[in-house]
Amino acid sequence: MIKRAAILSTGDELITGKVIDTNSAFIADRLFSMGIKVAAVLKVGDDREALLWAMREAADLGEIIIGTGGLGPTEDDLTSEVVAEFLGCPLVQNEEIAASLRKRFEARRIPWTANNLKQALFPQGAEILPNPVGTAPGFRVSFGENKTLSWLSGVPQEMTAMFDQTVMPWIVAMRGGQDQIFSQAFKVYGLTESKLDDLVRPIGLEPGIKLSFRAHYPDLTLRVTVAGASEEQRRFIETCKRIRLILGSHIYAEGDTTLEQRVGQLLSERHRTLALAESCTGGLISHRITGIAGSSAYYLGGVTSYANDVKVKLLGVTPATLEKYGAVSQETALEMSHGIRERIGADFGLSVTGIAGPGGGTPEKPVGTVWISIAQAKNHEAKLFQFHGDRERIVLGTSQAALNWLRLALLE
Amino acid sequence: MIKRAAILSTGDELITGKVIDTNSAFIADRLFSMGIKVAAVLKVGDDREALLWAMREAADLGEIIIGTGGLGPTEDDLTSEVVAEFLGCPLVQNEEIAASLRKRFEARRIPWTANNLKQALFPQGAEILPNPVGTAPGFRVSFGENKTLSWLSGVPQEMTAMFDQTVMPWIVAMRGGQDQIFSQAFKVYGLTESKLDDLVRPIGLEPGIKLSFRAHYPDLTLRVTVAGASEEQRRFIETCKRIRLILGSHIYAEGDTTLEQRVGQLLSERHRTLALAESCTGGLISHRITGIAGSSAYYLGGVTSYANDVKVKLLGVTPATLEKYGAVSQETALEMSHGIRERIGADFGLSVTGIAGPGGGTPEKPVGTVWISIAQAKNHEAKLFQFHGDRERIVLGTSQAALNWLRLALLE
Repeated sequence: MIKRAAILSTGDELITGKVIDTNSAFIADRLFSMGIKVAAVLKVGDDREALLWAMREAADLGEIIIGTGGLGPTEDDLTSEVVAEFLGCPLVQNEEIAASLRKRFEARRIPWTANNLKQALFPQGAEILPNPVGTAPGFRVSFGENKTLSWLSGVPQEMTAMFDQTVMPWIVAMRGGQDQIFSQAFKVYGLTESKLDDLVRPIGLEPGIKLSFRAHYPDLTLRVTVAGASEEQRRFIETCKRIRLILGSHIYAEGDTTLEQRVGQLLSERHRTLALAESCTGGLISHRITGIAGSSAYYLGGVTSYANDVKVKLLGVTPATLEKYGAVSQETALEMSHGIRERIGADFGLSVTGIAGPGGGTPEKPVGTVWISIAQAKNHEAKLFQFHGDRERIVLGTSQAALNWLRLALLE
Repeated sequence: MIKRAAILSTGDELITGKVIDTNSAFIADRLFSMGIKVAAVLKVGDDREALLWAMREAADLGEIIIGTGGLGPTEDDLTSEVVAEFLGCPLVQNEEIAASLRKRFEARRIPWTANNLKQALFPQGAEILPNPVGTAPGFRVSFGENKTLSWLSGVPQEMTAMFDQTVMPWIVAMRGGQDQIFSQAFKVYGLTESKLDDLVRPIGLEPGIKLSFRAHYPDLTLRVTVAGASEEQRRFIETCKRIRLILGSHIYAEGDTTLEQRVGQLLSERHRTLALAESCTGGLISHRITGIAGSSAYYLGGVTSYANDVKVKLLGVTPATLEKYGAVSQETALEMSHGIRERIGADFGLSVTGIAGPGGGTPEKPVGTVWISIAQAKNHEAKLFQFHGDRERIVLGTSQAALNWLRLALLE
């Protein structure tokens, strides 16, 4: 029976503060949702002694050890050799991986150098964990009494894919006849964490139901987890229903669906098209929308109108409006959404214009003042928003507000 | 002499993945900048056993131990009592802190409860570290042979203020006349990690010079670190010179500068303006450019032309070109960069058109095929690129290639 886990995050960039370690939080969240307690997270640099120390401690702390980093081809990538030393076994070249690496390099016409073979060396007896995103595969080895070490790439994008495709199913399979874990995430817009907590608290007080919150701006996620069998499953389904009832349209998506995916689904289902006119968001909304494969079916295109002149030339905003009301105004936002809708010939014209800062604020229009407008055939509105924080946060918050309004407009 | 530090980040929220630990990266960065090596970061929950384990290990690992979290008034705030247990000393109430807490509560009309006094209990002999931002002060205790434990609030805003006002000056005073750390980062484009390793390996073999690599697609960073005094500083400067010579224009920036910042600097310095026509990158280049405060001085705006129709209507690409050569072609890329430059009236018109996938590829134009074009007054070119990986990676790689070409064009 699996009880505890230890997480190792490795790399000089972590202990010199060059990079914030997001990997361990991702892994801890996944393990927590499966009912596995993380005893500790250990972060060490690319250093043989420190890695050995961390592996020994991790093996003392938990049955499941999950490490990240140090799988690359360079001299400071020490993971495989230190794990082999820790286990007291030799390093063995995996011919299949070696061949596929060579093939990959040839296909891209990248010169092949001997140190690339490092990535094909694994502790003897290790099972290879494929890396669907990058070149460096990971591995899993069992040792001692029922202990298992899984090692994944330290690149977050690669790590998350590897974790979900190789570690998750393995843990689920290993847990076998035990309790099942029922878990669902609700993505929420328009509530603070404490307001959300207030609303769902009665549910969280019921025995066996675990509610957890995760705020990662601009996302706020509520997760329900119930462990058990059929009776617990019934309660889990009932709980999810209650949450949907309580939170209503504050829930913009469930599971791993992002807000832009949800908007894309709605545009697709309703056979509607979208055009964007972005000022302060500088292309972020367009970037989020086009991050979804197949978005060309509903997203026609847009204009980033950073200079006023571009608002006039490409969106048809009148110079008189800009002069009288300014670029950040209800009138300009309305003309922008109308202009992009007409010029591109889309069902929805969405515009944003605001002051992202740090400069450009005035007492009447402080940094964070944003107008958002949606133009449809029979409806044309603009709304004023006030965001807080630094430039990045204001732009991100604006993109989230604009997409959420578009979602609600599509649901009408 | 201080050599090594260990950082403890504590709190259940850290080991359940609810919160990403930014405190340890902040502290590690500050210590690194003062030439203090962080041996490890340990993260544990609000649990007596786990905290004791972490303190014992930290005391083994370094002379300076810096902990955060668990100083509040609630039941799960265990820091003071566990530190007292670890040191084998009693907890003592600090009357000054107790009085000031009571006063603070009265002033805010918050009901005073006995557990608030918890925040006035400290291990005997501890020096109080004031918290200029919140209610919970921290403390510092010395123990063993020349070891010191400093404990700060876990709230990032409080922690940073406490660190800079109490820990930094103490370390600076304690270090006196020791070694300095010289460190420089070089951001590289157009080389694989292993090719870069090959090129600079001879330098890394010299005694006292540490080279480290960081590949975070699409960024590749080489860092040089040398510890010592004036002679080492001379060698450090010499080493940086050699690296600049070996890598030449592959280095797109030094230090923390991003590629978009570098491009922004060059556009500013040369008083040139930019307009973008993005197809497969869907607004990412615009988003990257506008992420820089002040970019409105050189970036006028752009068009995201996802639909062919938008290429015609907003960029002036001729329907005949689209029909004859297709949207992903040299001809279309050239007309796009020309069109956006003319219509927006910028010095540089930069366009990209390609197949980001996963759909849309053909044997002649597989997924990852991208044309990039730059239009200037007297120069108008397009180049073909082939990228690999998933949609996100292709789009990111394309944006990097486009910005890098623009950088080189600006340097000409």
